[in-house]
Amino acid sequence: MKAITESFVVPTRGKGTYEITDEVSALLKRSGIKTGLATVFLQHTSASLVIYENADPTARADLHRFFEDLVPEGNPGLIHTAEGPDDSTSHLRMALTRTSESIPIAEGRLQLGTWQGIYLFEHRSAPHRRTVVVSLIGN
Amino acid sequence: MKAITESFVVPTRGKGTYEITDEVSALLKRSGIKTGLATVFLQHTSASLVIYENADPTARADLHRFFEDLVPEGNPGLIHTAEGPDDSTSHLRMALTRTSESIPIAEGRLQLGTWQGIYLFEHRSAPHRRTVVVSLIGN
Amino acid sequence: MKAITESFVVPTRGKGTYEITDEVSALLKRSGIKTGLATVFLQHTSASLVIYENADPTARADLHRFFEDLVPEGNPGLIHTAEGPDDSTSHLRMALTRTSESIPIAEGRLQLGTWQGIYLFEHRSAPHRRTVVVSLIGN
Repeated sequence: MKAITESFVVPTRGKGTYEITDEVSALLKRSGIKTGLATVFLQHTSASLVIYENADPTARADLHRFFEDLVPEGNPGLIHTAEGPDDSTSHLRMALTRTSESIPIAEGRLQLGTWQGIYLFEHRSAPHRRTVVVSLIGN
Repeated sequence: MKAITESFVVPTRGKGTYEITDEVSALLKRSGIKTGLATVFLQHTSASLVIYENADPTARADLHRFFEDLVPEGNPGLIHTAEGPDDSTSHLRMALTRTSESIPIAEGRLQLGTWQGIYLFEHRSAPHRRTVVVSLIGN
Repeated sequence: MKAITESFVVPTRGKGTYEITDEVSALLKRSGIKTGLATVFLQHTSASLVIYENADPTARADLHRFFEDLVPEGNPGLIHTAEGPDDSTSHLRMALTRTSESIPIAEGRLQLGTWQGIYLFEHRSAPHRRTVVVSLIGN
């Protein structure tokens, strides 16, 4: 039984979704683990994770737009805006999606469905460097 | 220490919540694991998981209705609708709930609270066959 | 390889967020695990977990307010209100946040980012005693 914790950095160009499935799969392959659990964890509170449809980019365009509408910037009720109108809204959009996601491993591969990709969801307008931590446990 | 990954299929009759607690518990029992972690993972992007109140069906009726209102079908702003008005909305409702859920194991049992049931939340109108993958790790 | 499952109780004073990072870190330290995975699980359906900005309390004030607005009490469409106007809304706010959260362990420490705190999010108006279960797996 092995337990490995590693990390990698994702440079973002501001708001949007950035696929990280290949990076996670590469860590798994290198680990040699065949059966177990991969956990992806994002070390930030103004970006999040989501497993989303990876085939048609219009699906993610709708995701981006939906969150702009559900948690609009410029809401005068929000007071945590020291870093700008995308400050509190980034945290709220993060809370509505995920910080960690755990994916079973079998036959040495992440057991994602055909249309599932792992995405980092950047909520800040400016580019950021985001650290993703991956835990791999298994045989 | 054991690491086991198994799966089962849930046939849905379209939109709604389908309890899968017994299926997960049965896999745990068969594994013989007494202490560790059970992770439930859904291989789809138009259905999701949620741990919800399992006693009074009106709680889940409210859940279904709330998501119809929060992410309404027919929103002209959504462009990913090639498969119908429940296409993009299914992905969005999935993103707002969960794809994976991890439950500690003690004394050979899932450590769910008294009123917690694990549910598959189907977001498509048509019946589907959904694959749930379960990772069990522990002693 | 160790697998440990423990729990602790958080007394809440009603609605709001209560940081539990120290409690989880203390269990990790006592376990002696250096590399692996910590999973925090809440045994309730009217409270939830969220990893949130831990520096400026205005961030969490916005979180509380946002959920009051997104899932308002007194919505006549909600029928699961036997325990009061905060009954169904508590479950809905829970479903929109998290029940479990998994955090990789490295060098004997939770791999949280600088501004990340683990919070119990109480959705009921009255004080409650909430049980948090923690699974620790690793070497």
